[in-house]
Amino acid sequence: MTELRNPAALQQMRDAFDRQGVMRTLGVSVADVQPGRVTLVLPFRADLTQHHGFLHAGVVTTAMDSAAGFAAFTLMDADAEVLTAEFKASFLNPARGDSFRMVGEVLKSGRTLTFCEARAYAVTDGGETLIATLTATMMSVRNPALRRE
Amino acid sequence: MTELRNPAALQQMRDAFDRQGVMRTLGVSVADVQPGRVTLVLPFRADLTQHHGFLHAGVVTTAMDSAAGFAAFTLMDADAEVLTAEFKASFLNPARGDSFRMVGEVLKSGRTLTFCEARAYAVTDGGETLIATLTATMMSVRNPALRRE
Amino acid sequence: MTELRNPAALQQMRDAFDRQGVMRTLGVSVADVQPGRVTLVLPFRADLTQHHGFLHAGVVTTAMDSAAGFAAFTLMDADAEVLTAEFKASFLNPARGDSFRMVGEVLKSGRTLTFCEARAYAVTDGGETLIATLTATMMSVRNPALRRE
Amino acid sequence: MTELRNPAALQQMRDAFDRQGVMRTLGVSVADVQPGRVTLVLPFRADLTQHHGFLHAGVVTTAMDSAAGFAAFTLMDADAEVLTAEFKASFLNPARGDSFRMVGEVLKSGRTLTFCEARAYAVTDGGETLIATLTATMMSVRNPALRRE
Repeated sequence: MTELRNPAALQQMRDAFDRQGVMRTLGVSVADVQPGRVTLVLPFRADLTQHHGFLHAGVVTTAMDSAAGFAAFTLMDADAEVLTAEFKASFLNPARGDSFRMVGEVLKSGRTLTFCEARAYAVTDGGETLIATLTATMMSVRNPALRRE
Repeated sequence: MTELRNPAALQQMRDAFDRQGVMRTLGVSVADVQPGRVTLVLPFRADLTQHHGFLHAGVVTTAMDSAAGFAAFTLMDADAEVLTAEFKASFLNPARGDSFRMVGEVLKSGRTLTFCEARAYAVTDGGETLIATLTATMMSVRNPALRRE
Repeated sequence: MTELRNPAALQQMRDAFDRQGVMRTLGVSVADVQPGRVTLVLPFRADLTQHHGFLHAGVVTTAMDSAAGFAAFTLMDADAEVLTAEFKASFLNPARGDSFRMVGEVLKSGRTLTFCEARAYAVTDGGETLIATLTATMMSVRNPALRRE
Repeated sequence: MTELRNPAALQQMRDAFDRQGVMRTLGVSVADVQPGRVTLVLPFRADLTQHHGFLHAGVVTTAMDSAAGFAAFTLMDADAEVLTAEFKASFLNPARGDSFRMVGEVLKSGRTLTFCEARAYAVTDGGETLIATLTATMMSVRNPALRRE
């Protein structure tokens, strides 16, 4: 199991998630948190679609970015905040499903930069389909004004 | 001025935009449409923020992707639909502003692939700040079931 | 085992590799070919370094792109050629090693687009270190002038 | 004109370039250096091609990465070294030309991260064609052992 630098990191990750207005707005919730690995879930909603009725690529990406960013956060120091420097997302299959599952994982957790990956799956009665992948560079920011207690 | 392959493309782009549920949900609207160039605008909303109170990177990206995708769409054949194959977004500055302006432009419009760029600006009383950039590969899909009249 | 659409694909992949002048120039060779998975190797060379004496990120990327592109090629139709539409590479650790191993894999092989990943490892006496990752969009081009026999 | 934090940066950039073995091996040279903007040139060479006889995408990328990285370097502090964290490259047109010109530019120079873009052009008698674009995240590393005098 990956070592935590901050013993309270998993709980703090859940608290930070709850402060993200956009996650409530999009209906994303936390399914699982492990050191360096976060799983989010998102039910299908017609008001989040593109013009063919599939979930919009940007919504899939928002949830993959959050999964990756919070995975990075679990391995950071107690006084660090996480910011997304950049990400790339690829869309392998249409985002057609009853719900969606996003898994973010840390590839390398450095002092300043953390490299992450995420995968998004569409969930139906028939099983799961890989619909998108993301790679991201996350940055640790040490901001006394943002210090986590 | 860039040549249109489909004379009705600019109006069809606006119609397709109006069918995107997620654009209404996020409050994104069309500010300008030119051949190969689309500008979208988005007012700040507290329910679209990350945990520091800035607009979430995923929301900025959703709007940049739409600006780029619809810019691609304006230059496509009449029977073509546009799908995002992939994009990369970089976040240069915090998404802090009264509103946001996203400009998508076509770099190369091919028969199958269209390469696009987009930039996102935060708008305040003091002016505009570049907050994010995106590059994307858009794909033309010829789908009789999706044929535009 | 992944199905081949073209029974001669693995041999044709090796032939195409041998026609790439740049692979000889950089000293890259084929270590293993499976359907949808290609491994390349590259010894360290001082004339391929950046200014700290590590292998240049561009050289690592050139070999990862080839591993990914040839992995895509193994799953294509007999009359298809492969072109790289785009890739993104992340550099997790310095490219410091006696030799380097690049593994390219197909995530999804479509009729027009193939989505691939690659990883690069530095090899030393002490073992292997993940130094870089790549995600790529490869395009099938059907060109009678380029038809493979 | 962009402000230099390090008055000697332009000369130090040329010195660092000259220490990159791979630039000599590939035949890349410096055409122009401005604060935040570096232009490199590269003649066509048959031993740097892919299997259709065009310049390999990885070679185009190596030169774009160098143009972007050295553009970042010109705006850094005197004790900073530049490392590429990640880049994405898109290939718009075949790399077919007598020579190639790569222009790297800084979009935002931060204390730790610098966001850059680069473009690659194929040069023929008939003029120039945009063949590729790159966006990159460069990192400043303060390493006493690497301190520039």
